Amino acid sequence: MKQHLNYTMLCDFYELTMGNGYFQTGMADHICYFDIFFRSVPDEGGFAIAAGLEQVIDYIENLNFDDEDIEYLRSKGCFSEDFLTYLRGFHFTGDIWAVPEGTPIFPHEPILTVRAPAIEAQFIETFLLLTLNHQSLIATKTNRIVRAAQGRPVSEFGSRRAQGPDAAILGARASYIAGCSGTACTQADELYGSPAGVTMAHSWIQMFPDELTAFKTYCRLYPHNATLLVDTYNVLGSGVPNAIRAFKEILLPQGITKCGIRLDSGDLAYLSRKARKMLDEAGLTECQIFASNALDEYIIRDLLLQGAKIDAFGVGERLITSRSEPVFGGVYKLAAVEDKEGNIIPKIKISENPAKITTPHFKKVYRLYDNDDGMAFADLVTLYDETVDDSKPLELFDPDATWKRKVFTNFRSEELLKPIFKGGRLVYKLPSIEEARAYCAHQIDLQWEEVKRFENPHNYYVDLSQKLWDVKQELLEQQG
Amino acid sequence: MKQHLNYTMLCDFYELTMGNGYFQTGMADHICYFDIFFRSVPDEGGFAIAAGLEQVIDYIENLNFDDEDIEYLRSKGCFSEDFLTYLRGFHFTGDIWAVPEGTPIFPHEPILTVRAPAIEAQFIETFLLLTLNHQSLIATKTNRIVRAAQGRPVSEFGSRRAQGPDAAILGARASYIAGCSGTACTQADELYGSPAGVTMAHSWIQMFPDELTAFKTYCRLYPHNATLLVDTYNVLGSGVPNAIRAFKEILLPQGITKCGIRLDSGDLAYLSRKARKMLDEAGLTECQIFASNALDEYIIRDLLLQGAKIDAFGVGERLITSRSEPVFGGVYKLAAVEDKEGNIIPKIKISENPAKITTPHFKKVYRLYDNDDGMAFADLVTLYDETVDDSKPLELFDPDATWKRKVFTNFRSEELLKPIFKGGRLVYKLPSIEEARAYCAHQIDLQWEEVKRFENPHNYYVDLSQKLWDVKQELLEQQG
Repeated sequence: MKQHLNYTMLCDFYELTMGNGYFQTGMADHICYFDIFFRSVPDEGGFAIAAGLEQVIDYIENLNFDDEDIEYLRSKGCFSEDFLTYLRGFHFTGDIWAVPEGTPIFPHEPILTVRAPAIEAQFIETFLLLTLNHQSLIATKTNRIVRAAQGRPVSEFGSRRAQGPDAAILGARASYIAGCSGTACTQADELYGSPAGVTMAHSWIQMFPDELTAFKTYCRLYPHNATLLVDTYNVLGSGVPNAIRAFKEILLPQGITKCGIRLDSGDLAYLSRKARKMLDEAGLTECQIFASNALDEYIIRDLLLQGAKIDAFGVGERLITSRSEPVFGGVYKLAAVEDKEGNIIPKIKISENPAKITTPHFKKVYRLYDNDDGMAFADLVTLYDETVDDSKPLELFDPDATWKRKVFTNFRSEELLKPIFKGGRLVYKLPSIEEARAYCAHQIDLQWEEVKRFENPHNYYVDLSQKLWDVKQELLEQQG
Repeated sequence: MKQHLNYTMLCDFYELTMGNGYFQTGMADHICYFDIFFRSVPDEGGFAIAAGLEQVIDYIENLNFDDEDIEYLRSKGCFSEDFLTYLRGFHFTGDIWAVPEGTPIFPHEPILTVRAPAIEAQFIETFLLLTLNHQSLIATKTNRIVRAAQGRPVSEFGSRRAQGPDAAILGARASYIAGCSGTACTQADELYGSPAGVTMAHSWIQMFPDELTAFKTYCRLYPHNATLLVDTYNVLGSGVPNAIRAFKEILLPQGITKCGIRLDSGDLAYLSRKARKMLDEAGLTECQIFASNALDEYIIRDLLLQGAKIDAFGVGERLITSRSEPVFGGVYKLAAVEDKEGNIIPKIKISENPAKITTPHFKKVYRLYDNDDGMAFADLVTLYDETVDDSKPLELFDPDATWKRKVFTNFRSEELLKPIFKGGRLVYKLPSIEEARAYCAHQIDLQWEEVKRFENPHNYYVDLSQKLWDVKQELLEQQG
């Protein structure tokens, strides 16, 4: 069951034609540095959440062209036999650094860096991007929705609207890291441990002669997990009264007071208040009200503002596709190459659009926390051989308006990019999904509320060290 | 390489709890009819394109709970051992009808119907929905983009922004059926035959000391597939002049006049006209101009209206995620059950929102074509035992405004739903992807331009037969 498609061939075809080109021209072994970073936060939020590293590791460790792949590539008629022979033994020999899953990330800072021979570094581009882009997208959206629910559990419900099987399973995985309490997706539970929950469909109720019989049957079957869907016919006219009867007849005599109803249509604010009153009057104060139906962070926020009596949410298509912004724009850009003596030569990609100019060189990212309150206040991108000394005052400046400068003292710093692969060998101990989830929640706590606003969040500082800024400026002037 | 994850466990957990419920209450064998249909066309278009049937067939044929799955389910503590034993031998024994891939489809008509024992029919809901929803979404979006390009080839370029590996591979597959000329995704070519094409990344150019050397090297390597990316530094100042030099120095001496350049940033209308002029003046009239960068049907339409000199398009994230509308809202609804004597009892799902009321009963869908011009003019949904007789006049009426009636003569009719499984056995010969693609293109030709408009398309008629309308009305009155 755990077998899966080998994704070695999930590359843009140009990775292979360029690879063949490097191979034919003797450039295959030239050491390159590529960064993955993104330029803007989905939904105009203040930050994104990194996710997908586990699948990146799995991909790197399982890179393998089999005979069928080689035969297919030969049939394309554009690759040399030497190159095909080389591919048959292809594996990754380079280094990778990345931010852990669940880390809040900001535009223009590297979230993953590859150092590897050109042919390898180029080859892995597509899979790394698609994996980090997809899972970071879903993690980012989920975290907004979870924050809107203010501590109430949010379940991921979107498999049927996901963009393919992986989008359902891996999307559920990412949503769990970012704060969902569980999923409806059985395979995501089995493979990744995001707990799958129990509920029912309208068809269950339609299969019985009447709603009450359907409810009572379900309560008998699952007395400890009876969440009854009350909107098949008429929520307040039949659904809630029948649920109350079923609970009283089947559960209460067994001493079971924990139960639930689910609202899946209509005005959830109004219906939940009315249903709460009916349940309380029937003495079912422990009965939870679960709401679903086209929810997202804005609707959940509004429902709670309007006094909706909802204890838990199920969120489907707007989470699993990040419907309001279904693309995470991570890019993979050349930052440096090494010459034959091992000197690192920074590279820049110019653009007529200044926001698209890359930050050159092999880099580090430090996150800075205020020692007074523990909160993160800036990220600092430095050259690979710089070190931030927490014991000394640190001057930061706005890379676009360099006269805006400020000196910080009494802070601590943490390197964000952790070593993942070293010389092709995995050197990272992957946290469990529960650890990643706890880490994410903790990291979110260290971000200011101003950064977490849904609209017009504070622009968190991502600054460059003076040395890095100087390198970038020099390259810009050379190119200009 | 062709091995893949078994998706038996890709179900909403409630399919299993309901299945266990049917099993425990002796209802597992009750025959049910479920329809898949959708309620609105993405992007407010006039129609959608069905896709994904091949993966549905693959799923049904490979349903299998292995020991690991059973062990996992046992650990959930809510399933009886009898049920787990039953699951170990679970397979599909029912019937499925569906529209072929590439068929234009309209709201509120069944695009797939399942007749099966309750436990089986309920179980397959999630995977069927997610597969048809995903691939139909991408096929529908692609067809809009392809139509905007007015015959110019459109390549799918979006793997790196796809929502997971399947979204890249299966999205490329769906886009090929719906009219793309190829893809950048190697694995989609290897697995499904959507041709993978050749181009280069900016990093190729950055890896060389200068742009001209990068171009000439590429022309030497791929003289018959040399499409040079000209926007790394300055399109008109260096990119196009260097491409012209490379073509003249490397390709023309070999007698090769077919080549190409790719524009990936800037004002594509302006740059393409200028580049065309430079290429023509250099005698490179056969050099094609390829454009990419955040394209969709609206931008392509506008570029062509503005006289852009573009011969082919590459479309990425806006196609592979259907960014403007990333959800296809197919639903799976109970339409009927059989009683012990095999009588079909229609079922309806009421809703306070009239658009969400289902059409009950076991049904057929006829597409009607005008014999004068061959064009499709309406779909008619009938009861399963009705037949449309093309030789007789046929009266259609608006199901919402029944006084609007019209009699049609001189038409032909075609049943849309084809038998796919019969008694659990595959009875459908799956067309090749090339056949599906040709079928789709032909079906699009049979739709009126008025239906194909991007904005405010004509509302194609999906009518109910009088008998079906009467059944629905009767059930509504009973429930009301």
